[in-house]
Amino acid sequence: MLTREKKQDNWKPIIKAFEAVLGQKGVIKRREELITYECDGLTSYRQRPAVVLLPRTTEQIAQIVKICNKYSVTFIARGSGTGLSGGALPLENSVLIVTSLMRQILKVDLDNQRIVVQPGVINSWVTQTVSGAGFYYAPDPSSQIICSIGGNIAENSGGVHCLKYGVTTNHVLGLKIVTAEGEILDLGGQVPEMPGYDLTGVFVGSEGTLGIATEITLRILKSAESICVLLADFTSVEAAGASVSDIISAGIIPGGMEMMDNISINAVEDVVATNCYPRDAQAILLVEIDGLDVEVQVNKQRVAEICKKNGARNVTSASDPETRLKLWKGRKAAFAAAGHLSPDYYVQDGVIPRTQLPYVLQEIESLSQKFGYKIANVFHAGDGNLHPLILFDNAVPGALEKVEEVGGEILKLCVKVGGSISGEHGIGADKKCYMPDMFSNADLESMQWVRQVFNPKGLANPDKIFPTPRTCGEAANTTMKKFPGVEQF
Amino acid sequence: MLTREKKQDNWKPIIKAFEAVLGQKGVIKRREELITYECDGLTSYRQRPAVVLLPRTTEQIAQIVKICNKYSVTFIARGSGTGLSGGALPLENSVLIVTSLMRQILKVDLDNQRIVVQPGVINSWVTQTVSGAGFYYAPDPSSQIICSIGGNIAENSGGVHCLKYGVTTNHVLGLKIVTAEGEILDLGGQVPEMPGYDLTGVFVGSEGTLGIATEITLRILKSAESICVLLADFTSVEAAGASVSDIISAGIIPGGMEMMDNISINAVEDVVATNCYPRDAQAILLVEIDGLDVEVQVNKQRVAEICKKNGARNVTSASDPETRLKLWKGRKAAFAAAGHLSPDYYVQDGVIPRTQLPYVLQEIESLSQKFGYKIANVFHAGDGNLHPLILFDNAVPGALEKVEEVGGEILKLCVKVGGSISGEHGIGADKKCYMPDMFSNADLESMQWVRQVFNPKGLANPDKIFPTPRTCGEAANTTMKKFPGVEQF
Repeated sequence: MLTREKKQDNWKPIIKAFEAVLGQKGVIKRREELITYECDGLTSYRQRPAVVLLPRTTEQIAQIVKICNKYSVTFIARGSGTGLSGGALPLENSVLIVTSLMRQILKVDLDNQRIVVQPGVINSWVTQTVSGAGFYYAPDPSSQIICSIGGNIAENSGGVHCLKYGVTTNHVLGLKIVTAEGEILDLGGQVPEMPGYDLTGVFVGSEGTLGIATEITLRILKSAESICVLLADFTSVEAAGASVSDIISAGIIPGGMEMMDNISINAVEDVVATNCYPRDAQAILLVEIDGLDVEVQVNKQRVAEICKKNGARNVTSASDPETRLKLWKGRKAAFAAAGHLSPDYYVQDGVIPRTQLPYVLQEIESLSQKFGYKIANVFHAGDGNLHPLILFDNAVPGALEKVEEVGGEILKLCVKVGGSISGEHGIGADKKCYMPDMFSNADLESMQWVRQVFNPKGLANPDKIFPTPRTCGEAANTTMKKFPGVEQF
Repeated sequence: MLTREKKQDNWKPIIKAFEAVLGQKGVIKRREELITYECDGLTSYRQRPAVVLLPRTTEQIAQIVKICNKYSVTFIARGSGTGLSGGALPLENSVLIVTSLMRQILKVDLDNQRIVVQPGVINSWVTQTVSGAGFYYAPDPSSQIICSIGGNIAENSGGVHCLKYGVTTNHVLGLKIVTAEGEILDLGGQVPEMPGYDLTGVFVGSEGTLGIATEITLRILKSAESICVLLADFTSVEAAGASVSDIISAGIIPGGMEMMDNISINAVEDVVATNCYPRDAQAILLVEIDGLDVEVQVNKQRVAEICKKNGARNVTSASDPETRLKLWKGRKAAFAAAGHLSPDYYVQDGVIPRTQLPYVLQEIESLSQKFGYKIANVFHAGDGNLHPLILFDNAVPGALEKVEEVGGEILKLCVKVGGSISGEHGIGADKKCYMPDMFSNADLESMQWVRQVFNPKGLANPDKIFPTPRTCGEAANTTMKKFPGVEQF
């Protein structure tokens, strides 16, 4: 393995080998161009890679990876770089393999409801490609207009519609991958049920630690006949939470069910001015109902009645696309809006059993008061996937560390009530220290043995997911530096 | 590893160790009692195990497995023994671990829609446990009144309702397992989205080769408000197939959609006399629609219109539970009924992309004529999961081999059109020789490396799934004997 001290000269033969595969245009090595690639969506961690590669084909990736193996250099795959857990954070002296030139839709098979894409294809392009024929791709992260399918595979991304339709892993039929040793494998297939071990399922969500997906077969769904969005406003978070439980208990599975609290509502109205969200509400629920028109009409009434029974002041609804978009606009902009409330914010991602919602929200409020940071709550309420946004000022010395501590307390709370430390953003570099809170040493070891199968030398995306060393503090100090300012060339 | 020649004496200390854990009643060793356990649902393969164990707890299984490791004896897990691919086929000189005393429902959590069960719990008991509260467990193999949840996990079982709701793997949240070395691990959890590699997904469908599931957390669903079953009869198989395609293309996802051909229809009417299935129909479709009452009413009309447009002579429907059950009765009895058409039958299980249905059915008919065996077709039409039943007489020398050849040709046909060699019955001992038709050597090797992680000595269910030696003929001759008649004690 190359050491940090490795100098530019050592990279010369390696870069020459890369250029022989990709041409000079496919290899980025100038310092000022590399800065763009220092971080992904988790901007508080930065490391500059030694070189950035822009392959176009599976074979090129296999060749690149073989070169990495020959010279024992580590490599990290990156799609659009929108991930929020630092899954695509480079290491110094590493190779960053960026899939942004791999944006071809390889095959569309409407009759069998599947589409084959390269990893750099943007999430929303998939739906755009098939929507004219009445189909869509269900997983819809908030970043869907910029995030890539390859990144979605790595992080097993979710989104608003995952309550009813499942996360990325439920929509991947097969994968062509390049392993960490440069071998090309086919996982899964073209039909949902394949014999043998489900390695497709293992690969989805493995955050680039098992190799790089180069061709992805996705399931596409038939668009619903009718869609309706309801907005209900409440004078307490508890009433909104109770409505969520009652809707699910009634056997209604909304296409999406999102909750926002008072801080988020006001942040959104300040910034995007939807003029739909009442500023004095303690919580709003956005409930999307889809299906046959008759079904939507009945369920719309049922949801409205449940919300009113739980004390909603108003319930409005919209079926035309324009007004629906307007109602969703604030929710989709919630993270960005939080950025206007304070100089910085830290977004957490945890999952709890739905029944624990009132208790967990109270505890988050207690943490907010104890540590003195405002916390805005925006979440996929139907599946218990919380996104607390902790507001802070990174210019205050020690603030980031304190906020990370609050974030950690929230994750421990999720684990305590039987939940999970990640709903859809992944573990990446950010949360690996919390893995022992969820898994026993034996459990983690079996995962690491599986990693050994695909990535025996540890060259593919090292120092992600697994807690080595074991605590966050140690990790931050020893395996990566924040804002290091270390220059490679 | 013990050799075949190992005599009774060698087992004495091993059996003593087992009895120390399970008591004498938990250890079956008398020859006449062992006969019951010589095969599972694939009755054409038989091997008598050296001893059968009946544990009651996770800890007992861990201790048993450790004893197997100490003495290097192989072990095979078995639930109710209804599997159709020989996944629970014992080996000579092996230990058969039967979960039929592990039939406790450990926890019911209706609010969070989950239930925790021991592996010996019968599939239909899960629904029975929660149906009073308006819930059910979706995967419903035809054998659901006798098959065990542990066996369902091993084989990733499907069923009629898997078109809309997915197979077993889509309904398992978490597993406590005992690895092949006797280590207890927790895979997955209590909420659907868990970080790290999806080892739950790998374990489900691994056919006992990675260890034994001892506690299973299942997702339960809210029962639909309304259910309707339609029966449409056609004068050609093609017309029925076209209706299936058109129903799916219309965006309707039936709870189940099953097709039976003329041979199956007559077999069923001969045996169970539903008096619902017209004997002169070339094919019937059974379509179950579930959901809100208004939704069911609309979709019922749409399905009926589609079937009629495609030439259905009659379309009838039933909403009351009694008539629905009557309509389903014939389909559920189809395999058993085939047993009355000829002395023996061989059931195949393959998957094809739905659009290939007319072509594949024609090819199966050609194979039937070429080899001179009648083939009845019964299948989950909506998801392209075929179940051709090849009718033959095992008393005719060489007939079984010929029929296996026909079965193999059908599987190769499935692979050729982009399908799979198993939809829901697993690979087991029966189909491992066809795995190279679906997977490259590199693909198979990665699966086998994953097996090494959980089962490094190969003691858990050896000689299943993976093709060693590579052809069926070899496998039958060298690694197992059919009807061996070899006596252990």
